[in-house]
Parts: sequence; structure tokens; C-alpha cells
Amino acid sequence: MLELCLKPIASRSKYAQIQSRLCQCEKRHNGSCDEFPFLREFKVSHPSVAKKIERDATMTTGASWKSQDAGLNRILRWVMLLSDDELLDFGINMSQLKPQVIAKLREKAASYVDCIEVAKKLTWLAYQMLDAPQPLAETSAYLVAHFEPMIPGSTTCIVCRKSLSFNLFAEARRGRAEIETGHMNPRSHKAHNVGFVHRECNIAQGQRTLQEFYSWIREILERAESNPIARNPDVQNHEVY
Amino acid sequence: MLELCLKPIASRSKYAQIQSRLCQCEKRHNGSCDEFPFLREFKVSHPSVAKKIERDATMTTGASWKSQDAGLNRILRWVMLLSDDELLDFGINMSQLKPQVIAKLREKAASYVDCIEVAKKLTWLAYQMLDAPQPLAETSAYLVAHFEPMIPGSTTCIVCRKSLSFNLFAEARRGRAEIETGHMNPRSHKAHNVGFVHRECNIAQGQRTLQEFYSWIREILERAESNPIARNPDVQNHEVY
Repeated sequence: MLELCLKPIASRSKYAQIQSRLCQCEKRHNGSCDEFPFLREFKVSHPSVAKKIERDATMTTGASWKSQDAGLNRILRWVMLLSDDELLDFGINMSQLKPQVIAKLREKAASYVDCIEVAKKLTWLAYQMLDAPQPLAETSAYLVAHFEPMIPGSTTCIVCRKSLSFNLFAEARRGRAEIETGHMNPRSHKAHNVGFVHRECNIAQGQRTLQEFYSWIREILERAESNPIARNPDVQNHEVY
Repeated sequence: MLELCLKPIASRSKYAQIQSRLCQCEKRHNGSCDEFPFLREFKVSHPSVAKKIERDATMTTGASWKSQDAGLNRILRWVMLLSDDELLDFGINMSQLKPQVIAKLREKAASYVDCIEVAKKLTWLAYQMLDAPQPLAETSAYLVAHFEPMIPGSTTCIVCRKSLSFNLFAEARRGRAEIETGHMNPRSHKAHNVGFVHRECNIAQGQRTLQEFYSWIREILERAESNPIARNPDVQNHEVY
């Protein structure tokens, strides 16, 4: 078992009083404290991947479907654990938001510990994608100590179970990433529940748990097979035009 | 076979020179000409349903994902059959739009005849939903002459094949309808290819044809069943916190 440093890291963020960011390096480590030591290599070789993992792990998404609420699109997930009254002290007036925005933000709330473990899990998974860079032995040992031995190329989309290529991180359509962070149960932001997912698979899953999604599509196939669209007449009188 | 009036209906729209709107009443009908005689009852009893059918049948959706292009969100589908040069005469400069907006608009192009037949098909389907109002004998005869006899309650979502209730038209989440007009092949706006679909089913189908969608979800189930997520370790050292 890996023992971690867990010393608080100095921060000027107004949210630091809610939760100190903690050093995730091994206990008695050399060098300065670091909250994301497992992301050091990606930060150099693939900074957008490092940024995505950190962001998806720690930040809510929120109200992307309503641009007027975009101010709360990204907020630390553990801040959303505070009560409405506590949030007022940080200038966040939840009562001014629409009910569905509040619900979405609150649903994305997660503890600091869970967020950090999610970041580690996503990093562990990213290194096991096809075409992924090889981690340094130090990083590999750190991640393996948290999870399980790494099997190169073993990371699949949590929904469709196809192998994922690390190169998908660089691809985007309509300005949106082709690969997203997904949740087997959309309402639980914990390491064992997260993984990477094709954008279109994530969209298809929607608010269902993975098991609900599989049941749903199984029933669709059963209905489609037992009930082909027989009553689908084309228009009868095109010839009158 | 029903013979239609098809007299041009006077219009002040600048697009009338591209395509006259044609009377769809039966030939030698009484009263004034009407492009949507089959929607007359819905226009009185359920105006939003009538409006939705007319809009979905005749208008593109377009660039809803980019608000700055929203000006072209709704345009007559047959206008999108014109060339870029012809569109310039109507003040539409396609070259100023983003490639993906152009592609989406052009994909939604359809002939006037196809749009009108789609409106009839959707009306025919709406009357066959659970909880739907009964059409007047005149309207029923008109629609049946175009398609097939009506079977009350027989209309299903084209994707998931569950029965659809007419009451779904009145429901909306996040300001979006629960029921949408869908296409078995998303790139063909013809009567035999359209139907109603749950919003979430439409989203899951995405740009796939219905057959592609069913193949896709069948393969997902095969992979999920042969490859349960075994390698999904929870974090190992929560206890150090």
C-alpha cells in the first residue's frame, strides 16, 4: 500500500478554506509537493490530456445547454457539496438558478477525495489505451499501487466496450471532444464508476446507468425484431403531381 | 386514388417564386383552397401539434448548436435545394456559414412535394397514437386515401417501437419536446422514411440509419456480454486519508 504525503498545498483560491488541496506524492518524497504527480508526464507530452483529466475529475460541467447560466458551468465539485446558505458566502446564489441547472450542479457534487481518485483512475486508464505513451516506471508503480497492474491497450469505452485509442483525445468534431469521461452510474463520481467513453456512446447512454442502458437497448432489439415496421406505407398518389 | 386541387395559393413570401404553395384539398372541393386541409382539426383542438407537424415537415432545423448561426435555424427545406448562387439572390450567403452548418442545412433539403407528403404522414400517424382525438370522417378518408387504413393506438416510436401517446406532445423537458419527428434514414425527408420518435431515442440514434443503429446496439450487447468489466478496480488506499 502506498502511503501519501497529503500535506496541504498553499493556494490563493477562495475555495481553499472549504478544502485544502493535498499533496498526492508518496510520503517522504523528494522535491516540492504536487497534487497531481501522476499527471506530470502528460503535462509535458500531452498537456490537453492532463488538463482534461484534471478538469473532468474535479470540475462540474453544469449548465452548458443554457448560455445565460454559463457562469456556473465549471465549479469545483466539492464546492457543490455546500448548502445554499454556505454558497451565498462565496457569492453563489443557487436560488437564482433554474431548477434543472441546480439539479445538474448538485448531481455533479463529489468529495475532494473522490475527485482525486477519479483523476488517478482516468490517468491509469489513459496509459492503458492503444497508442498511449508509456509511463515512467515511477508513475506506473504509483498508479498500479492504487489500482491493478496495467495491461497496454486494455482500456475500452465503458459503454460500447470497443478499444479506445489515445489518439482520440486529439480529435474533435464541432469543437467537442470525441472522447469523454463517463460514469457507469451517471450520478456517482467515484473512481470505480468512471471511465472513458466515446462522445456518441455517452450521448446514447444519457441519464441511464450502464445496466439500465443495456436493458433498454436489449428491449429495443426485442421489440424491433418481433415487430418489424410493416405499416409504413409510402405516399400513394405521387403521380397526381 | 384521391385527386387533389393543387391550385397555387397566393403568398407574399419571397420564396413563393421558387415554389408556389399548392392547395391539397380534394379536386372540386368546396370552400377556399388550403395547403394543409388535413391539419384543420388539430389547428383548432391542438394548435401546437398542427404547428409542429407543419414546421417539422417543411422547415430545416439547422444550426441549433451554434447560436450565432441561429438566423438560419429555420428555413423552408426546398429553399435549401437552390445553389449557393441562387441563394445569394435571397440574401443567403452560404459561404459565410461554417462547413458543418452548411452540411446540416443541405442535408435537410427536400422537395416541396416530399415535405407536403411528410406532413400528411405525420398527421396520419398522430391520429393513430394512443389517446389521440378522433379525426372527422372527411379527414380520415383523406389520409387513408394517401396511406393505409388507420388503426387506433398503432403508432410507435420508430426507434424503440414503444406505443406513443398523443399526450406526449404536450410534455417538454428543458424546453424541448419529449416527442420529435424522426427519420429512419436521417438523410432522407420522405413520407415513408419519417415517423415520431422519443427525444431520447432520436438522440441515441444520432446520425445512424435505423438499421445501423440496431446493428450498433446489437454489437454493444454482444461485447458487453462477452466482456464484463472485470478490470474495474476501486481505489486501493482510501484508508490513508
